[in-house]
Amino acid sequence: MSHDAVEVIGAKRDRGELSDSQIDWVIEAYTRGAVADEQMAALLMAILLNGMSRREIGRWTAAMIASGERMGFSSLSRPTADKHSTGGVGDKITLPLAPLVAACGVAVPQLSGRGLGHTGGTLDKLESIPGWRAALSNDEMLSQLESVGAVICAAGDGLAPADKKLYALRDVTGTVPAVPLIASSIMSKKIAEGTGALVLDVKVGTGAFMQTVDEARELATTMVGLGQDAGVTTVALLTDMSTPLGLTAGNAVEVQESLDVLAGGGPGDVVELTLALAREMLAAAGRSDIDPADKLADGSAMDVWRAMITAQGGDVDAPLPTARDSHTVPAPASGTLTRLDALSVGLAAWRLGAGRARKEDEVQAGAGVVWHARPGDAVTEGQPLFTLHTDEPERFDRALASLDGGFDIGPGTDYSLMPLVIDRVG
Amino acid sequence: MSHDAVEVIGAKRDRGELSDSQIDWVIEAYTRGAVADEQMAALLMAILLNGMSRREIGRWTAAMIASGERMGFSSLSRPTADKHSTGGVGDKITLPLAPLVAACGVAVPQLSGRGLGHTGGTLDKLESIPGWRAALSNDEMLSQLESVGAVICAAGDGLAPADKKLYALRDVTGTVPAVPLIASSIMSKKIAEGTGALVLDVKVGTGAFMQTVDEARELATTMVGLGQDAGVTTVALLTDMSTPLGLTAGNAVEVQESLDVLAGGGPGDVVELTLALAREMLAAAGRSDIDPADKLADGSAMDVWRAMITAQGGDVDAPLPTARDSHTVPAPASGTLTRLDALSVGLAAWRLGAGRARKEDEVQAGAGVVWHARPGDAVTEGQPLFTLHTDEPERFDRALASLDGGFDIGPGTDYSLMPLVIDRVG
Repeated sequence: MSHDAVEVIGAKRDRGELSDSQIDWVIEAYTRGAVADEQMAALLMAILLNGMSRREIGRWTAAMIASGERMGFSSLSRPTADKHSTGGVGDKITLPLAPLVAACGVAVPQLSGRGLGHTGGTLDKLESIPGWRAALSNDEMLSQLESVGAVICAAGDGLAPADKKLYALRDVTGTVPAVPLIASSIMSKKIAEGTGALVLDVKVGTGAFMQTVDEARELATTMVGLGQDAGVTTVALLTDMSTPLGLTAGNAVEVQESLDVLAGGGPGDVVELTLALAREMLAAAGRSDIDPADKLADGSAMDVWRAMITAQGGDVDAPLPTARDSHTVPAPASGTLTRLDALSVGLAAWRLGAGRARKEDEVQAGAGVVWHARPGDAVTEGQPLFTLHTDEPERFDRALASLDGGFDIGPGTDYSLMPLVIDRVG
Repeated sequence: MSHDAVEVIGAKRDRGELSDSQIDWVIEAYTRGAVADEQMAALLMAILLNGMSRREIGRWTAAMIASGERMGFSSLSRPTADKHSTGGVGDKITLPLAPLVAACGVAVPQLSGRGLGHTGGTLDKLESIPGWRAALSNDEMLSQLESVGAVICAAGDGLAPADKKLYALRDVTGTVPAVPLIASSIMSKKIAEGTGALVLDVKVGTGAFMQTVDEARELATTMVGLGQDAGVTTVALLTDMSTPLGLTAGNAVEVQESLDVLAGGGPGDVVELTLALAREMLAAAGRSDIDPADKLADGSAMDVWRAMITAQGGDVDAPLPTARDSHTVPAPASGTLTRLDALSVGLAAWRLGAGRARKEDEVQAGAGVVWHARPGDAVTEGQPLFTLHTDEPERFDRALASLDGGFDIGPGTDYSLMPLVIDRVG
């Protein structure tokens, strides 16, 4: 059935529900250019402000999936599970997680993105490994999944092209923060990709997209519903992002921290979240009989990492790049670090060159922030609290400004940490 | 001060008030193309759904005025008064009104537009007069105002170019029905034009933009406030548009009805509204000592009409064009016409070719609807109720469909008419 852009916009503007036919038409017509960017922008703002029913979100997601190709992993000899994080500071979890789950016998087809703004991108991080390439054909991806068990690569252009176009439009029109649009964007790609199971890491806190647990729960519930309706076993964890993860935010510095975890060490919170997500992925794929902690301890996760990186051209033995300049921030007082703000750290890493302001920007492999204490740790006045890394020392001033006010040192020792996993939806 | 489009959109999306600096920037940047159509479309939808304060509307209007040139009539030997109608069916009032007020000694600089959709356009109507041209230079306009006292012409491109661009964008993005945007669009052009006094005819009813008296009063109050803040004496009448005005809707047919009024005859409602608006314009221009009814009766309004049309190349003695085909609809019963729906009649005239669906369409000079009874009139079964005119007889079916259900004939004679002038704001 044919519709008219002004009619569809008007229906949502006037707080109506869009029909299946209106949604199918507007997504298809926008993808082929018959609905103009300015018309879609008005519709997106009306959706943001007036909301969408569960039926509308489901149909919107299905229409985006239908705009492109669908992949499938039924030819593989093992089950598949994928993970998606809504984005946080220091969130390198995908790096140890994908080889770990593969080491447990579940294939991980991880289509990832690049970073924009203060949250890092998984592909940016991996590209700090000399020789590693993000672009694989579908056949290369399937072949690597069968032989290695884990792939982290860029999503091809064929998957949900409507979402690709909408995502770029939302970025410039102030229409990013809408649960129906975020949920359908994430889930259209994951459903089109064809994973059998999906675990969502929905971040909450200053360094995340969702600032409150209620908002995060709404997004998680919406995405879990979309996945289940599409036949994908889907579970979400709500996890804290008021504090950055681990001790590093950047690119090569986060790869190094991931290697520490794969070697059986690494910061406790990174290990905890990696194992929590691995257990959810294994359970969703029907393999809850395996304890992923064993696969970290016995080195088999590290073996998969090395095979995975090597298969994509990466030199696992080459030294990781380091930035040309560094700057240390000493602790201004003695006591307990009672707060470390994720947004402040994320902005500092971004301003040092680890992230990009515009899609076409390059990132610096060696740039980033390393912190030497986590909330709850005792610090002594004058000890190094942060080390900042960049190739361009003129960036230090703005990075330091974003750390200003981003942490507190208190007198006592009775500090209790926030729980890392706040809730589970599924 | 420099801003960013996403920041301005986000402020209004999150129900904030835009600062003067944000408004000035976004209008200026949009006019020169630095803010893209899709960004402005998202902002317009956010304004439509979240509203604007009186301060914001005033600043938005001022920014649109500042985007172009300002005219002025202080060099004229008499005061000026202009009139604006929000658009209705059969609303030919400007045609007799402008020469009538000029005949009373107040100059009328009437910048008008073309029709889009079911409401007619004043310029389309006048262009049915052989030879008449809508485009005048500013100097020609001033000279004609001095010599004749009345001008009805197209607004030049120099007046509020931001509004011109915004108006076209709103038309395709479902962002037309927003009081702040309607009010600022109308008032930016009228204030930039430089009239000393302005009378607004805000239509209410099925054939109008505003469907309820409350909506119309809100629009009227907003526009009167904007005018007064800008030093223009501004008054608004809320008038009924549930019934079409007069007995004709189209182009040449409405010119003929206007000539009937100027000749001292014509339908009672057209005469009543013409005189009511004329009295308001004269009062606003400080000439309430003159009774415009005298100037209709003594032929001096008709003299100004002839001079005004002649000055713009029109042949006042040439016969008006007629359509090639006509079709008569007989009354289906005897009784009293108790309802004649403005929207039904407006759509019929539009579908016959009197109006345009797209800006680039041509209109037919002879197309339109003539009705032979008004609500309250007795009708006899079989008498002609409507006569439809068009050059393209294939248009009759759709025009007849829009008249279907558009009128009622009842048994009694105790029918009382709605008041034509519902309220006054000023």
